[in-house]
Amino acid sequence: MATEGFRPLDEKYLVEYIKATPALYLKLGEKLDDLQIKEVGDGNLNFVYIVVSSKGSVVIKQALPYIRGMGESWPMTKERAYFEALALKENGQLCPAHVPEVYHFDRNMSVIGMRYLEPPHIILRKGLIAGIEYPLLAEHMSEYMARTLFFTSLLYLSTTEHKRSVAEFCGNVELCRLTEQVVFSDPYRESEYNRWTSPYLDPDAKAVREDDALKLEVAELKSMFCERAQALIHGDLHTGSVMVTRDSTQIIDPEFAFYGPMGFDIGAFLGNLILAFFAQDGQANEANDRKLYKEWILRTTEETWNLFKQKFIAVWDEHKDGHGDAYLPSIYNKPELQHLAQERYMINLFHDALGFGAAKMIRRIVGVAHVEDFESIKDARKRSDCERRALKFAKLLLKKRRQFQSITEVVSAVRQLHGQMVE
Amino acid sequence: MATEGFRPLDEKYLVEYIKATPALYLKLGEKLDDLQIKEVGDGNLNFVYIVVSSKGSVVIKQALPYIRGMGESWPMTKERAYFEALALKENGQLCPAHVPEVYHFDRNMSVIGMRYLEPPHIILRKGLIAGIEYPLLAEHMSEYMARTLFFTSLLYLSTTEHKRSVAEFCGNVELCRLTEQVVFSDPYRESEYNRWTSPYLDPDAKAVREDDALKLEVAELKSMFCERAQALIHGDLHTGSVMVTRDSTQIIDPEFAFYGPMGFDIGAFLGNLILAFFAQDGQANEANDRKLYKEWILRTTEETWNLFKQKFIAVWDEHKDGHGDAYLPSIYNKPELQHLAQERYMINLFHDALGFGAAKMIRRIVGVAHVEDFESIKDARKRSDCERRALKFAKLLLKKRRQFQSITEVVSAVRQLHGQMVE
Repeated sequence: MATEGFRPLDEKYLVEYIKATPALYLKLGEKLDDLQIKEVGDGNLNFVYIVVSSKGSVVIKQALPYIRGMGESWPMTKERAYFEALALKENGQLCPAHVPEVYHFDRNMSVIGMRYLEPPHIILRKGLIAGIEYPLLAEHMSEYMARTLFFTSLLYLSTTEHKRSVAEFCGNVELCRLTEQVVFSDPYRESEYNRWTSPYLDPDAKAVREDDALKLEVAELKSMFCERAQALIHGDLHTGSVMVTRDSTQIIDPEFAFYGPMGFDIGAFLGNLILAFFAQDGQANEANDRKLYKEWILRTTEETWNLFKQKFIAVWDEHKDGHGDAYLPSIYNKPELQHLAQERYMINLFHDALGFGAAKMIRRIVGVAHVEDFESIKDARKRSDCERRALKFAKLLLKKRRQFQSITEVVSAVRQLHGQMVE
Repeated sequence: MATEGFRPLDEKYLVEYIKATPALYLKLGEKLDDLQIKEVGDGNLNFVYIVVSSKGSVVIKQALPYIRGMGESWPMTKERAYFEALALKENGQLCPAHVPEVYHFDRNMSVIGMRYLEPPHIILRKGLIAGIEYPLLAEHMSEYMARTLFFTSLLYLSTTEHKRSVAEFCGNVELCRLTEQVVFSDPYRESEYNRWTSPYLDPDAKAVREDDALKLEVAELKSMFCERAQALIHGDLHTGSVMVTRDSTQIIDPEFAFYGPMGFDIGAFLGNLILAFFAQDGQANEANDRKLYKEWILRTTEETWNLFKQKFIAVWDEHKDGHGDAYLPSIYNKPELQHLAQERYMINLFHDALGFGAAKMIRRIVGVAHVEDFESIKDARKRSDCERRALKFAKLLLKKRRQFQSITEVVSAVRQLHGQMVE
């Protein structure tokens, strides 16, 4: 496993490493005798060290050649750090307000040094569990998605630029394979990794594994995920990959980045908001029934898509005479035709997003990796009730996604299903 | 041969080159004093030399760093020879009966040495113009397409293998760009390269450039062409890329090969058969009204798709428990579900093929590169009548392709439109 130049960081070696790396020690001031170091990697894939001095701070993230939570039993290339750094830099250029700055990357060590997102930044998912409203969340997320997706698609890039990047990110195949397995495969078959709130959801998990119509839809989504290099996507854009304060929204952890379908990112985010909605009944207590908060989540879901669409079309309009190879201005040469083309593009993207969002919801309930939104509900029966509603909605969404013409209809369907099931 | 750099071949240098290259001179016998050399490149991209000795024969194909017919004014990477050789070898392994063997490849010189397809092999397009029936054509072409497309798709390959090949063929981007321009762009806008049978088709060409519904469909096909790495496709599978005798069918010239949508190959072939059909009225004379031959073309069109579907499903069934990542047997675990998945896959592929086939027909009538089927009709009015019928059918097919459920329906629509328009 030991590759030349690679060595897992511990606190002592970390200090040596920083002292030898100008891009890092310059952020922390010349004197490095007062460093405070905290390892905070709560994911399964990496070490994450927060390093604070009296002069500054950095985060040091190191990818390990296996999935951390599973010990060394599930090997996973540490080259993912290369693609994470590449995506952070690319997205940082496209949307600097919402992507932490990268100070340093060391390919041999699989180490990224980047901006420390200081308190009160917390993981969005934790904020959603705590019932905190983020008034700018939809605005920021839609901005991030519109810019990172548009500017890495053929709407903006030439075929030459696009294929060059596609080829490079094909190298991140191991992470793509992991997604394929845990999102598109395992939930739909017996797998040692699957788990769910047993025994309550035993019949529900079985029903997923026996739902032919669902499996046919999932096959199409999986093919799209594997084959369609539409844009540079984050690849794991759930609410755990976003850090927030009331005023700031920062997207982190793009180690699954590759050229894939845009709808996978948009769906991941929307789907996780809807999961957060269905989890609220488990978080409600006598002090706070979460009714207003649930409405805020649904409003944010709606606004995220609507603002995304608006911003995406705005950058498209702005760059329609650029060098993007998809819609040449000499062909789509009238405002009404341009408008029709955009509407068609957006409705297809909307349906993709709903499909992927639904698949991401399902896998969080009956697959290997669950979400804290539900896991934090200690009463298993109550948790399973919440999960069952979310699962039922996700199955509906996956199968009927093409019947929805607007996000408002989707949100209405959430409300309707929730209303029926909590009676 | 240790060639430092590139040098265009002439007859004299060709002989030297062969003498220095064992893989070539061994095919021709040791004595090389009786070589007969003929340059036959009738395409626009390459030199093609047929070299025959008393002991054997080879074809030497050299890519030039520009499109030959346009002089040195339209540069085009000679690296395409690398991708052509790669595709010939890959397809040769998958379907040796229908792909000429490669003896030699020289990347610096962009030279491929391969089997000479000896007389009576002729270009299929010329056979179709001459009214010759090829009883095994549908059988052979369906075999070639089923095998080369299936075995390079995720139905057979793992994601790891697939992404590695996708990345490599991303390098053939210049040829992809050429297709994008001449198939998906130029016919739908004013372009100095476009031509058509003027003045007869002036209004028809203009109508194409002003047909918004057509442009919206073409945009979706172009996106699919650029984004969807479904399988290693030939990329230029018209009837000029096929050499035939009564018993033999050989697919040549895959310099446009890359990972793209399967339907592009299937459509290219079917679309060019339909072009050949519509050209027959121009080839008819008092000795031969071509009525029976037109029926043979339509039957061959029908059989090609039907046999393709049958063969493709057969190899899928045969390898359904293999390591292909698309449809895992643990999920698609019942014969009826497997069958449903296949039917859905095939109908989507069918609609893709019809769309691409239609686009390939249109571009041959109002775009830069025409087909000899029509060009050989000397009477311009008669030619334009044939072309107009083909164009009308192609527009219908492009817009309504999703309404066709079988190739029989498509062939009926050809007959019906032809019947109406020749009245």
